[in-house]
Amino acid sequence: MGFAPKTLSSELCALSPVAILGVSGYAGMELARLLLRHPRFSGTAPVFLGRPDSAPERLTALHPQLLDNNGAGSLQIEPFSWDLLRDRGVQVLFLATPHEQSRELVPHALDHGLRVIDLSGAWRLEQPANRAVYKFSDEGSSVATAIQTQAIYGMPELHRDAIRHALLVANPGCYATSIILALKPLVSAGWVDTTRGIVCDSKSGVSGAGKAPTAKTHFMHAADNLSAYNVFAHRHTGELLEQLSLSPDQIVFTPHLLPIPRGILSTLYVWFREPQQPATIESLYRRFFAESPFVRIFAAGHLPQIQYSVHTNFCDIGFQLSADGLRCVIVSCLDNLLKGAAGQAVQNLNLMLGFQESEGLA
Amino acid sequence: MGFAPKTLSSELCALSPVAILGVSGYAGMELARLLLRHPRFSGTAPVFLGRPDSAPERLTALHPQLLDNNGAGSLQIEPFSWDLLRDRGVQVLFLATPHEQSRELVPHALDHGLRVIDLSGAWRLEQPANRAVYKFSDEGSSVATAIQTQAIYGMPELHRDAIRHALLVANPGCYATSIILALKPLVSAGWVDTTRGIVCDSKSGVSGAGKAPTAKTHFMHAADNLSAYNVFAHRHTGELLEQLSLSPDQIVFTPHLLPIPRGILSTLYVWFREPQQPATIESLYRRFFAESPFVRIFAAGHLPQIQYSVHTNFCDIGFQLSADGLRCVIVSCLDNLLKGAAGQAVQNLNLMLGFQESEGLA
Amino acid sequence: MGFAPKTLSSELCALSPVAILGVSGYAGMELARLLLRHPRFSGTAPVFLGRPDSAPERLTALHPQLLDNNGAGSLQIEPFSWDLLRDRGVQVLFLATPHEQSRELVPHALDHGLRVIDLSGAWRLEQPANRAVYKFSDEGSSVATAIQTQAIYGMPELHRDAIRHALLVANPGCYATSIILALKPLVSAGWVDTTRGIVCDSKSGVSGAGKAPTAKTHFMHAADNLSAYNVFAHRHTGELLEQLSLSPDQIVFTPHLLPIPRGILSTLYVWFREPQQPATIESLYRRFFAESPFVRIFAAGHLPQIQYSVHTNFCDIGFQLSADGLRCVIVSCLDNLLKGAAGQAVQNLNLMLGFQESEGLA
Amino acid sequence: MGFAPKTLSSELCALSPVAILGVSGYAGMELARLLLRHPRFSGTAPVFLGRPDSAPERLTALHPQLLDNNGAGSLQIEPFSWDLLRDRGVQVLFLATPHEQSRELVPHALDHGLRVIDLSGAWRLEQPANRAVYKFSDEGSSVATAIQTQAIYGMPELHRDAIRHALLVANPGCYATSIILALKPLVSAGWVDTTRGIVCDSKSGVSGAGKAPTAKTHFMHAADNLSAYNVFAHRHTGELLEQLSLSPDQIVFTPHLLPIPRGILSTLYVWFREPQQPATIESLYRRFFAESPFVRIFAAGHLPQIQYSVHTNFCDIGFQLSADGLRCVIVSCLDNLLKGAAGQAVQNLNLMLGFQESEGLA
Repeated sequence: MGFAPKTLSSELCALSPVAILGVSGYAGMELARLLLRHPRFSGTAPVFLGRPDSAPERLTALHPQLLDNNGAGSLQIEPFSWDLLRDRGVQVLFLATPHEQSRELVPHALDHGLRVIDLSGAWRLEQPANRAVYKFSDEGSSVATAIQTQAIYGMPELHRDAIRHALLVANPGCYATSIILALKPLVSAGWVDTTRGIVCDSKSGVSGAGKAPTAKTHFMHAADNLSAYNVFAHRHTGELLEQLSLSPDQIVFTPHLLPIPRGILSTLYVWFREPQQPATIESLYRRFFAESPFVRIFAAGHLPQIQYSVHTNFCDIGFQLSADGLRCVIVSCLDNLLKGAAGQAVQNLNLMLGFQESEGLA
Repeated sequence: MGFAPKTLSSELCALSPVAILGVSGYAGMELARLLLRHPRFSGTAPVFLGRPDSAPERLTALHPQLLDNNGAGSLQIEPFSWDLLRDRGVQVLFLATPHEQSRELVPHALDHGLRVIDLSGAWRLEQPANRAVYKFSDEGSSVATAIQTQAIYGMPELHRDAIRHALLVANPGCYATSIILALKPLVSAGWVDTTRGIVCDSKSGVSGAGKAPTAKTHFMHAADNLSAYNVFAHRHTGELLEQLSLSPDQIVFTPHLLPIPRGILSTLYVWFREPQQPATIESLYRRFFAESPFVRIFAAGHLPQIQYSVHTNFCDIGFQLSADGLRCVIVSCLDNLLKGAAGQAVQNLNLMLGFQESEGLA
Repeated sequence: MGFAPKTLSSELCALSPVAILGVSGYAGMELARLLLRHPRFSGTAPVFLGRPDSAPERLTALHPQLLDNNGAGSLQIEPFSWDLLRDRGVQVLFLATPHEQSRELVPHALDHGLRVIDLSGAWRLEQPANRAVYKFSDEGSSVATAIQTQAIYGMPELHRDAIRHALLVANPGCYATSIILALKPLVSAGWVDTTRGIVCDSKSGVSGAGKAPTAKTHFMHAADNLSAYNVFAHRHTGELLEQLSLSPDQIVFTPHLLPIPRGILSTLYVWFREPQQPATIESLYRRFFAESPFVRIFAAGHLPQIQYSVHTNFCDIGFQLSADGLRCVIVSCLDNLLKGAAGQAVQNLNLMLGFQESEGLA
Repeated sequence: MGFAPKTLSSELCALSPVAILGVSGYAGMELARLLLRHPRFSGTAPVFLGRPDSAPERLTALHPQLLDNNGAGSLQIEPFSWDLLRDRGVQVLFLATPHEQSRELVPHALDHGLRVIDLSGAWRLEQPANRAVYKFSDEGSSVATAIQTQAIYGMPELHRDAIRHALLVANPGCYATSIILALKPLVSAGWVDTTRGIVCDSKSGVSGAGKAPTAKTHFMHAADNLSAYNVFAHRHTGELLEQLSLSPDQIVFTPHLLPIPRGILSTLYVWFREPQQPATIESLYRRFFAESPFVRIFAAGHLPQIQYSVHTNFCDIGFQLSADGLRCVIVSCLDNLLKGAAGQAVQNLNLMLGFQESEGLA
């Protein structure tokens, strides 16, 4: 693209506490956008990093929509090196990289004294059985095992205190975020009859499928269509099992590809052990998320829609209870690139650096 | 619109065995399109009927896309009257009318010796409890009760023989068709553990919401969005209960509004009583639908998508079984205006008139 | 909808320098969103006004997507009255009302000492011939004539100084903004051979058609479709003629309805009097908009796309010149609800109150 | 995909007068669909051909939507060879191949006594200057020159008689079809002031960009967007110049990518030499296309929309005249895969084989 920036601010090349590796994808771009506007970093743009052997490239050549009048047009994506990170004073490194690359980089990053927020699935899962689907090449190595022990699952609503002091935050999966936040209060309270099974029927916009052009992301496949995929085989399943303390036979998770750019809606089905009242359920949710600025609870009987949460960092939750009080349908919505990826990562950053959890996310 | 028809075929005003009342909506338009091309009615267009007090109107003024070179442009929508139906020799009357109107018209139509295919929900439900949601004004009257007894649920795959001789066919709901066809073989075989509950998560294109402009059908609401609605309260639920012989506490059905013009995908979740094999399940489906030309069974582990069935009269069914053989996800797809409405109505017509079931639907 | 706000800030009911009448439509909602986040009004939410006889209603009941954690959930839309405006200390009144209502209200507002930014077409046109298409009921009255004389066409890039001191700003039409900004530099420079005619082929997302559910805004009409409308008859034509000093026979403007929620792309065709060079044209544009923070000029031969400008207040402009240097295709893009409506209105507000033009719009 | 065909008709492997090379793309698939239903070929499926070195593959494995109950599921795509074509008795070979491949194959096909309908741009252009954009490797060779002389531009509305006897038909470009049909009557009549320039602003659905997954066809680029491309450089421009007898400086053609799967709308702008009346223009169009079954003329002042023509073989044409009778906006719509590709190819086939022009296209 051919934007010519209006001004070139030399300050933008100065010291910066944060860096992003992997800014070419959708989550990386959203992260860049959020950090460029973050009030705590005004005047100090993040360090944007590409492959070690890449030529420097203008950020707005890749993402014309990021250009604005504050000099963003002159920002460069620089070749990755540990020296560069040290020279710029980077404290927190975001990895928006494929999971194999994150597995490889994180040990070195920690050795260099960096704190890491990893947006991939590399370090989210404690149980080897749940990690099997990733087929990590370093699975079982002593280094990887040691690092996994330190990793904190980066869902502030569940692990806020641990995140504040974490060296390595494993940012949750987008589907997993929408499901875990909606089910955790009910499951924790012991209300759900898990022997009857929990059904998670999730639908995601196409940005969740990544930026690589494929048969799946071709407009002609995605538009005017809906398809289920990876049934009983999606990588986010392990996150559900670990964070909700469920066994594999207690849950079914089916993701679908929606003909929209962004947004996830999960429809969740539980059977209660004993009849419940709508007001009691609503109250349980409100108490559970009382300190959480990015969860919005809808009044009983009102359901969120994808439109309400897209372009925000909110996870919206609503529910409908059957007349007998035993069957409950919960609907949760979020923007897969924000609360489901970059926005949640900034929440984690804020906690790690001692800022207000919501700074830069309003 | 301003089409000027090229030719006017006087034959098109001649005798016709079929008539449609309510041609302004989407299902009525599809029905008109199908019957205009039906090989058994070449040269004898259906009688198109509007309100008794309406002025005659060109069909293609309402639906420009129906115009072609065989004179369709000159076809009129005529004011409804019983005399007109008699004079034209109509034997089968399609009602694409609101359900209250169908309740009112059917007794008279039968009195006039007409056979009726009703596309509304007026006569689909045998049990008063299941009909309650419709709040019919004639509920419980002796006439209505007598007529309901004669009504045949118009799903050829389940009631083919009864339909051949039916005087009144109640054409199934679009959601109900996608769910019943996919679950019936498994439930009939006694494989499903109904005590654990069946989950039906269905998604429909906007044409299912009707032609009236409303806040729900506004492009700004439907596009880039997904929303669940009528949870535990959708009118098609009764059809599921009756055709699958289930009790209300054994099933949950959640419809969603998809940002696409047409098509339904239902994702169905069952738990089996005993472990099953994929090949056994596929085989069960194939046997069940061996004589049914409009059900396509996918090989085990392959799932249909909305795109494959749209603009066809097929209901596509596929499934994925869990490793333990106990949890099964079934996906079914169809075009809500064809197999879910007008196409299934033509299947029923073919059976009633002794034609091949698939004539005019290839 | 059922959001229950988390906090209720009593400050939000305090004095406020701005009010919006007509917050139910899309432009009104965007305006509310922008003003709620405007750094100059933190702690002082705008006054939101509905009909004089309306009951107070929560803003987020109408627009759930506006809810956030700063108390917006408790904001009320209050019944309109002049007393209320006075009591709240309102200085600037935004009118997001139909044009007939704006014609009626503006004289009273000025009498009450308010400054007005009107988003309708009521006061944009100086020439009676150009206003004829609106059929104003007070056309030609002495009051209306006097007020029209004071009205400033609210396009900061053309009338920045006049807007600073204006009592009444007529916020431009969305199509007109995209066309005038792209053509003004070329026409002003005298380069365009207007005797050969200028073609303006514009395409707009559905939000431009308003929030009322109509046959035109029904998803089934707008989706998978494109249609031209109001050819030689669109109300924005007069704005083109007046702001570009053209006569009606020198321009053709054709609007089209795009199957997307928001965004306008105008493709503009001019013939030059003498051959030009790409670099010269680019340079002309850059000089013309050197002081304008919300116009982005693309390098010669690079064209903007709707995606780059949506959800921003930018108007993006690019062009392609023919090999002979005589025929030029200019493409301009903007978000019809921001630079084409609410965003431009906030630019005007900033100028009127002596703020930086870009405050609250980054 | 896993369709298991219900029946295997051995007849489908018998002699066939037609073959398609290149059935994997969108135009090839539509061609397969049309020919499988063509009444003149019932019981004799076309020969479907892939690369010479490809393994046989089921047609419905590639295109599940083609499966139906008449045995299509068993149809094979066979490796290309001239012997196979001879053995099957093929008379007409469709090439749905890239243009370089069509350049290479056509001389051999003619040598083998085959008649060819080529859907690529290989043989559409008579003038070397207009072909330059293709950079054919055999440009100027005596063989290529001789073949080009025999090629007939396959637009039945303009060259019906020549097509009947053609050995090689060059099927027109999709954009070119929509523009030439709409302009030819006006230009031929000498009404258009070509010295003022003709503007062709065209918009196409994504299927026109081909099946290969690219950054351009990625859902995230195409959806919620509109972009102009190849301004002053599109390959179809030469077809406009040759078929309308215009010089390059008399026309500007700008294609745009629409966020819809299929359909083209062209908005065309002409200035008349002398004022015209709407009725005269409409009459001119009707006379010009009196014998053409696939052009629908709209009444003066009524404009076609993409929806009316999609899934049909019609080109719809409407216009709006300015009050002074001098400026005229013409809108034409068609389905780029049917009238813009496969449908027009079948029209040509029908003419070549002496069938009714509209057979198999109703």
